[in-house]
Amino acid sequence: MVDQVKEPPTFQWDVRVYWEDTDAGGIVFYANYLKFFERSRTEWLRSLGIQQQSLKDSSGCMFVVTDATLRYHRPARLDDQLVVTASMIDIGRASMTLKQQALLKSERAEHPPATLLCEGLIRIGWVHGASLKPRRIPVSILDSLKN
Amino acid sequence: MVDQVKEPPTFQWDVRVYWEDTDAGGIVFYANYLKFFERSRTEWLRSLGIQQQSLKDSSGCMFVVTDATLRYHRPARLDDQLVVTASMIDIGRASMTLKQQALLKSERAEHPPATLLCEGLIRIGWVHGASLKPRRIPVSILDSLKN
Amino acid sequence: MVDQVKEPPTFQWDVRVYWEDTDAGGIVFYANYLKFFERSRTEWLRSLGIQQQSLKDSSGCMFVVTDATLRYHRPARLDDQLVVTASMIDIGRASMTLKQQALLKSERAEHPPATLLCEGLIRIGWVHGASLKPRRIPVSILDSLKN
Amino acid sequence: MVDQVKEPPTFQWDVRVYWEDTDAGGIVFYANYLKFFERSRTEWLRSLGIQQQSLKDSSGCMFVVTDATLRYHRPARLDDQLVVTASMIDIGRASMTLKQQALLKSERAEHPPATLLCEGLIRIGWVHGASLKPRRIPVSILDSLKN
Repeated sequence: MVDQVKEPPTFQWDVRVYWEDTDAGGIVFYANYLKFFERSRTEWLRSLGIQQQSLKDSSGCMFVVTDATLRYHRPARLDDQLVVTASMIDIGRASMTLKQQALLKSERAEHPPATLLCEGLIRIGWVHGASLKPRRIPVSILDSLKN
Repeated sequence: MVDQVKEPPTFQWDVRVYWEDTDAGGIVFYANYLKFFERSRTEWLRSLGIQQQSLKDSSGCMFVVTDATLRYHRPARLDDQLVVTASMIDIGRASMTLKQQALLKSERAEHPPATLLCEGLIRIGWVHGASLKPRRIPVSILDSLKN
Repeated sequence: MVDQVKEPPTFQWDVRVYWEDTDAGGIVFYANYLKFFERSRTEWLRSLGIQQQSLKDSSGCMFVVTDATLRYHRPARLDDQLVVTASMIDIGRASMTLKQQALLKSERAEHPPATLLCEGLIRIGWVHGASLKPRRIPVSILDSLKN
Repeated sequence: MVDQVKEPPTFQWDVRVYWEDTDAGGIVFYANYLKFFERSRTEWLRSLGIQQQSLKDSSGCMFVVTDATLRYHRPARLDDQLVVTASMIDIGRASMTLKQQALLKSERAEHPPATLLCEGLIRIGWVHGASLKPRRIPVSILDSLKN
């Protein structure tokens, strides 16, 4: 049963599917899972006290995606309610990697509670905002991330 | 003080600004307010018991935007928390018009509670999904909309 | 025959409809006409020697949309070839207004050559990039625009 | 010199960067490279006589992305002119894999002609449009793809 979630993810964020997310195939346009994953990552960071706009204003630096690997399992459709997870699986001095999943919430009481739609590995680097050159992640942020 | 909200809107929906919503001007890309307005309209419809995907499956019909008038007052930025309103101001047998506003939530306790960013008039028609020809809105939906 | 073009537009830009532009209604998502209109405006400016990124780098200022009025006539679908026009109808010291149309190119030799899909009035202001406060359009740009 | 193109790609398609493609980091939003790649794939298919909307209308089937692996090398900015390549590196009875690159066109006469911005491996399956179940790619399409 590869489509079921085995263990509780580190962070979860609800995402509703609107017209803007769909394409003429009647399903969510595949590129948009990168948006859903980012909303969840952003809220995960916010839950750790990390606000990206404030950080950019104060440090001149920002997180950017350097690698993404995506596998699409099943489609989502208009009005579907998704849960999007974010789980840090690796962190270094200048980058980190997250495992993320988009799951379809079941609206019935029966099992399974969620069906896997898309999963991805997202590697994120910390860079200077103007030059986009890699920088070491500030210790205060590292501490928050490793909490 | 034209930038302040005078009366409580019919329906409110929170929208957070993510990277996906912004452009190189450092602000929310103006076309995306149409997406924010639609999220609020969709949730307003859902609050009335109207689910668009189910409706399309059962009736073969759907709502489409036929006219939009937008005025941009102030920009929103990454991480801003918005409130997006939806207020029906006119309804006929085949279409309705909503007034919508995107407001910036103030995070401070002082007044004003919200600053107007963008407002729009959105006219929506009820059409057949395949031909996109106008149809009369079903009475059951009209009743829900006029509740 | 309101759906036919009466006079040759000032500027034309071809736009092809891809999956990214469509929604689950099987048609182009209405907000995306704002993108199509902007591509045409950008290329119109480029044809006048006005490059927006260079301008922003050199002057610190940029054009922003302040008002948009859109009317949707007929839908476009995947693979459709559109022509998007841009025609300046008014210009002041700090803003200008363009009339724009998205037309479906007919692939048959018969008339009409194009069917009107969407038309809009787009008002654009010249603002400082950081404060977003209105500024007077530089004379050199005004001259190019009025050529 | 990993950032330079070693061999002529199978197919090339020009893509211009507009405001809609950028984010508040001042660069192209990373998810949008999936759109650029798809425009190039779509035009590659069209160059082989394969029109996706017609195919869906006639066969009830369509191509969907099942896997995507993306590596981001350097950022693109507003007004940049890109070349986006598509090169089929594997094909089976129900899917194919393409290697794609987004390159920045140099506007100067000197070498290199292009700088690598983003590269991806995109696996595409052929599925039934309603059920989204995998199907064997029709022989006539296979023949065109293998030409």
